[in-house]
Amino acid sequence: MQKIGKQTIKFDTPPSILECSSIVGPKESDGPLSKYFDQTLEDEFWGEKSWEKAESKIIRENVANLILKSGVSSNDIDFVIAGDLLNQCISSSFGLRDSNIPYLGVFGACSTFVESLSIGAVMVEGFAKNVICATSSHFCSAEKQFRFPLELGNQRPPTSQWTVTGSGAAMISKNGYGPFITHITPGKIVDMAIKDANNMGAAMAPAFCDTLLTHLKDTGRNPSYYDAIISGDLGYIGKDIAIDIIKANGYNIKSNYNDCGVLIFDKQKQDTHSGGSGCACCASVFSGYFFKQLKSKNLKRILLIATGALMNSTSSQQGESIPGIAHAISIEI
Amino acid sequence: MQKIGKQTIKFDTPPSILECSSIVGPKESDGPLSKYFDQTLEDEFWGEKSWEKAESKIIRENVANLILKSGVSSNDIDFVIAGDLLNQCISSSFGLRDSNIPYLGVFGACSTFVESLSIGAVMVEGFAKNVICATSSHFCSAEKQFRFPLELGNQRPPTSQWTVTGSGAAMISKNGYGPFITHITPGKIVDMAIKDANNMGAAMAPAFCDTLLTHLKDTGRNPSYYDAIISGDLGYIGKDIAIDIIKANGYNIKSNYNDCGVLIFDKQKQDTHSGGSGCACCASVFSGYFFKQLKSKNLKRILLIATGALMNSTSSQQGESIPGIAHAISIEI
Repeated sequence: MQKIGKQTIKFDTPPSILECSSIVGPKESDGPLSKYFDQTLEDEFWGEKSWEKAESKIIRENVANLILKSGVSSNDIDFVIAGDLLNQCISSSFGLRDSNIPYLGVFGACSTFVESLSIGAVMVEGFAKNVICATSSHFCSAEKQFRFPLELGNQRPPTSQWTVTGSGAAMISKNGYGPFITHITPGKIVDMAIKDANNMGAAMAPAFCDTLLTHLKDTGRNPSYYDAIISGDLGYIGKDIAIDIIKANGYNIKSNYNDCGVLIFDKQKQDTHSGGSGCACCASVFSGYFFKQLKSKNLKRILLIATGALMNSTSSQQGESIPGIAHAISIEI
Repeated sequence: MQKIGKQTIKFDTPPSILECSSIVGPKESDGPLSKYFDQTLEDEFWGEKSWEKAESKIIRENVANLILKSGVSSNDIDFVIAGDLLNQCISSSFGLRDSNIPYLGVFGACSTFVESLSIGAVMVEGFAKNVICATSSHFCSAEKQFRFPLELGNQRPPTSQWTVTGSGAAMISKNGYGPFITHITPGKIVDMAIKDANNMGAAMAPAFCDTLLTHLKDTGRNPSYYDAIISGDLGYIGKDIAIDIIKANGYNIKSNYNDCGVLIFDKQKQDTHSGGSGCACCASVFSGYFFKQLKSKNLKRILLIATGALMNSTSSQQGESIPGIAHAISIEI
């Protein structure tokens, strides 16, 4: 592997995404991508006593399903790289504590999935045979932790997004016939002083643009090189802002750019305001939908840019702004 | 780089630890290692309005000092890999948001420093010129978040540990004359069903032993190969448990094993019960003390094993046990 340009890494022997697995909750199962997910849940508890335990079960079962689908023996898996939105990433650590696989915890808020794919790809090109990259989020555990008790029934402003309940997981491998991870462009923290914790799309869009523009410059590629450029969870508002910023920088991405938060829900029917969000938004939409499009060659080259808001409730209460980050990964067949 | 044995990576061109930097708070400044730290603070606020903002300032200033000391231009730094104990790792993200360096957030609780060194070393052998690995913790922000408001003045049980206020940071580089990172052994999650959140040493000791024994088996080394084997923050109680478990597995590590949590405070004079803990415990003791011992060749081979407890206050309230993890890194001159 080698660094090209300012912050992109190009792989000499691109790691293969051998298999993906996805589980989503009931609301996501009612959305337009329903048929693409491996498993859909009927309720938010899945037989557990708390939303946190349910989220741990979701990532555990999803990783177990990934291992099963991939046909890779657990002994041949070098690492599981995972993280989530819960304080101290407990969904991942409790969900994966019995996996008996070396564990690296990562935290990039909703950018976690692509962060883990990026580190995983470096490991596979370096020395590893197989690495699992996984993440989860849960609407109820996230609302409870970041906003208000669900029981209050608070009104949600039109800029707010709906945290996806679910998990996405990928097996990156030295073996396999693709799709291949050809480049990664890990992002810098970008803070444009947005303070509205109910408008994450606006807070994260500048980071998305910074990483996309850097990726294009580093690789010498034009946006049209990609069949699809996909952001993680900017939602409707963040997506519009992103298109505007990119246009001001000389590129038109309107025709081949979309956002997982826009794709996963039906805005009109599902009352999800600005769209989906959460670590599982990008992870489940990639693992469920885009991975299959690549496998079936409906899409041949995609740029997946997961976005994260690196704040917590204390920082908001202390009047801080919301730093954003975005990591990009180029996946080609 | 190549994998040897079950879970150890051996570097073909061992990355160099070019420079380290450390800042600690007032209590650590009164401890036995005081003179080794780059900067010592007179109070826990350092001119900020909250403990969280103070912790962000600590990691920010420490990373700035590391860059200055190392003589590396910011443009030549490929990544900063960082994480901390605060919910959603806000100390790192707010502290490093203006760094203008690609950022990878990691979470391994108190094992974070060695996790970041491990990923950083893989990056450097793979493609990167320089990578910063940093972490922080703060007694007051940690107590407030994980236990009780400090103002309550709660009694602390004898098994409890004292979260270190401070930060440790290292610059890993393709260049430099060592000490070199020769091996890493990332750990698995080990949960022995310990539920006492005031006895972290007991919860983490089994993970320490699992990683140490695996490292010895993978490398074919005996504990006596190392001038020092150092755990992150098992404290007095965890240290004793670790020595016993390792003895039951056929090795005596009494003569060359110590713990950063034991070393950083004077137990008798400082009323710190079982010793220090927190991400900054291992990070500041390595960056302040052990790095200098390696540079001056007082020590030639050390095995640093940072330990983490992967829980949060919600998991404890829900009756969960405390999963532990430990990552090992072999550093030699």
